[in-house]
Amino acid sequence: MTSFPESHSDLLDGQVASFATIDSDGFPQVTAVWFLHDGGELKLSLNTARRKTQNLAERPECSLFLLDLANPYRYLEVRGRARIEPDDDYVLAGKVGAKYNANLKAYDGPEESRVVVTIEPVKIHPVDMSG
Amino acid sequence: MTSFPESHSDLLDGQVASFATIDSDGFPQVTAVWFLHDGGELKLSLNTARRKTQNLAERPECSLFLLDLANPYRYLEVRGRARIEPDDDYVLAGKVGAKYNANLKAYDGPEESRVVVTIEPVKIHPVDMSG
Repeated sequence: MTSFPESHSDLLDGQVASFATIDSDGFPQVTAVWFLHDGGELKLSLNTARRKTQNLAERPECSLFLLDLANPYRYLEVRGRARIEPDDDYVLAGKVGAKYNANLKAYDGPEESRVVVTIEPVKIHPVDMSG
Repeated sequence: MTSFPESHSDLLDGQVASFATIDSDGFPQVTAVWFLHDGGELKLSLNTARRKTQNLAERPECSLFLLDLANPYRYLEVRGRARIEPDDDYVLAGKVGAKYNANLKAYDGPEESRVVVTIEPVKIHPVDMSG
């Protein structure tokens, strides 16, 4: 199953996700990330200098965890592979910035660049244990 | 660094954590879990029939992600190895149940049992991007 369920569609427009990659020592690494539901896909705008971006270049397997902050027994886990594409012109970064009312370029150093990370789902796991 | 920082100590007593393991196909798997800060360590009470428990038996590398639900730019990530010990008498399950006002045994099938999963930290990563 690789389509997003209607029951959890609100979470696709949520504010913060937890994003798990696998580091070079074989440990899961989890960070909070901004994300965008764009064209039916889940995308991140990542700085290439970040460890999680480097992790994905070596191992594309990842999981994006969208938690209902108001009801943490309800969430959507999207496990998949990261497709990494350049975003040298900050096109996706601009879209993400519009969602969060932020200028992502301001977070980047002069020698750094951005990539678009698109999650290609392998498993979509909607959960609601809230009753 | 493997001690919990004072700045994030409140999160050790939080309500829900995201827990990442690595599945048999090499993907990170993330679920919401109950947890307990007990004797200076972070522990989970897991049903042995669950996929995440099976993942840990094969690969102990895991990450527990403690998010401040009221301020999701603040979190504590505890990356480490899972030490798995039997909890046939539901001793830890009872402690976790006391925290959450729940009877964990009621969630288990007749042939199922519980283990104590203790996170042995390799890396503790406190983050506060809220300002």
